[in-house]
Amino acid sequence: MPSPSIVGQERGYVIPIGGAENKLNNPEILSRFVELAGGKNATIGIIPTASKLADTGARYQAIFESLGAGKTHSLPISNRSHANDESYVEILKSCTGIFITGGNQLRLSTILGGTPIAQTIRRLIASGVHYAGTSAGAAIVSQHMIAGGKAGAVPTEGGVSLVPGMGLINTVVVDQHFNQRNRFARLFSAVSYNPSLLGIGIDENTAAFIDGENTFTVVGSGSITVVDPSNIEYSSAAEAREGDALTLLNLKVHILAAGARFSINDRQAFKK
Amino acid sequence: MPSPSIVGQERGYVIPIGGAENKLNNPEILSRFVELAGGKNATIGIIPTASKLADTGARYQAIFESLGAGKTHSLPISNRSHANDESYVEILKSCTGIFITGGNQLRLSTILGGTPIAQTIRRLIASGVHYAGTSAGAAIVSQHMIAGGKAGAVPTEGGVSLVPGMGLINTVVVDQHFNQRNRFARLFSAVSYNPSLLGIGIDENTAAFIDGENTFTVVGSGSITVVDPSNIEYSSAAEAREGDALTLLNLKVHILAAGARFSINDRQAFKK
Repeated sequence: MPSPSIVGQERGYVIPIGGAENKLNNPEILSRFVELAGGKNATIGIIPTASKLADTGARYQAIFESLGAGKTHSLPISNRSHANDESYVEILKSCTGIFITGGNQLRLSTILGGTPIAQTIRRLIASGVHYAGTSAGAAIVSQHMIAGGKAGAVPTEGGVSLVPGMGLINTVVVDQHFNQRNRFARLFSAVSYNPSLLGIGIDENTAAFIDGENTFTVVGSGSITVVDPSNIEYSSAAEAREGDALTLLNLKVHILAAGARFSINDRQAFKK
Repeated sequence: MPSPSIVGQERGYVIPIGGAENKLNNPEILSRFVELAGGKNATIGIIPTASKLADTGARYQAIFESLGAGKTHSLPISNRSHANDESYVEILKSCTGIFITGGNQLRLSTILGGTPIAQTIRRLIASGVHYAGTSAGAAIVSQHMIAGGKAGAVPTEGGVSLVPGMGLINTVVVDQHFNQRNRFARLFSAVSYNPSLLGIGIDENTAAFIDGENTFTVVGSGSITVVDPSNIEYSSAAEAREGDALTLLNLKVHILAAGARFSINDRQAFKK
């Protein structure tokens, strides 16, 4: 289920980042996020749940403050009872921007799934608060989230595992570290199961700035690869055995560098 | 220039193999080639020029004989004067099948390019002799041959170098070890320069059996990835600087496993 839309209010930006974004030297992606969230008037809530490192939240607080954010909070949610803690919900409600760090996306889905924290994030975004997430925090944007899969160029049966994500954007499967970890195969596998999905593979230090109309602009040094199976003529996924090479006829692929745009609703790419 | 067609005669099969094909245990690809070439009536000429190993030719002779080929020849062509040697041309003319081994495809283009050997191969194929080549021997089938490039998922400006190949099949760029060496990026880069090209990326132990009508069937354990840029809406290749991420809008991609077919002339894929 996507973030609910609230009549008369524009949804906030949803910004999946492919991981390893520049943080101090030319931090274009994080700067733009701080700016969208209000710059010196911004309050940014950081959720470091995916990470097992104790200092991840504090590290991003320092980064966002160095980029001019007025106020930052780190919410040290590391188990389900934390994710039901009303004091964290109250802090989130004061935020103009929410940021989920990298780590393991299964920690995000297993700890945050179905909790007041997840519900609050979805409601806030619908009411105009902006969301950014890097690596695991990008994957969790998906309704059907890639939890793991085989690296490589060409897809095989069983080559990806999908689990429910937070579904901030409907129908989209976001993969990250895309070029760096050679993830074409698992994104192809993911969309092969159901052509209603749209695959979005994001390189490191690259982000999709998805606006309230579900059109995104590419920001950063790498590419975003869009795999659109809507015209697919045939997928052998229903017949293939585990590990078999798949046949997929007529996928549409767009490679989008900085400045290029894509309308998720219309499945239409634009060079600028 | 493709192999000339001779009125009333069907061109032989052209069979690019993605490298590392099974040789003794379930050697489906090589067996089918021997069978096409006439089985016990076959005479197979092996050109090991791409390889720098002295025993490559003899090794394939033993393999083809074990698979039932009536007669085999290895032509130890390792420099341009060999490639002008009429005795080798005479041996080739006795063959029903020609096989070029793996190694370095630049050895093939630099040593065989423009010689009587290359001319004879093209004429023989046009008159019905069958051709197979693995790895470098697959790349050389291309008119615009990939000599090298960057591994990865997403293309960059200058991410591939193209040189003239033997052009046994018109308009096709063949890449090999495709999944194993993560070559999406360089195949995308190659077709981005001119949408008249069709990219064909072949996995190891996988082959395209291209018939006289330019329709191929996939044989082997991996996939063939076809990148068809004919509907491309935009390529940033003319504007991007060296190393820049490219924008390519509206590529068509087919992933083809064993048994799937593709018409190169019509750019049409078939599941069987």
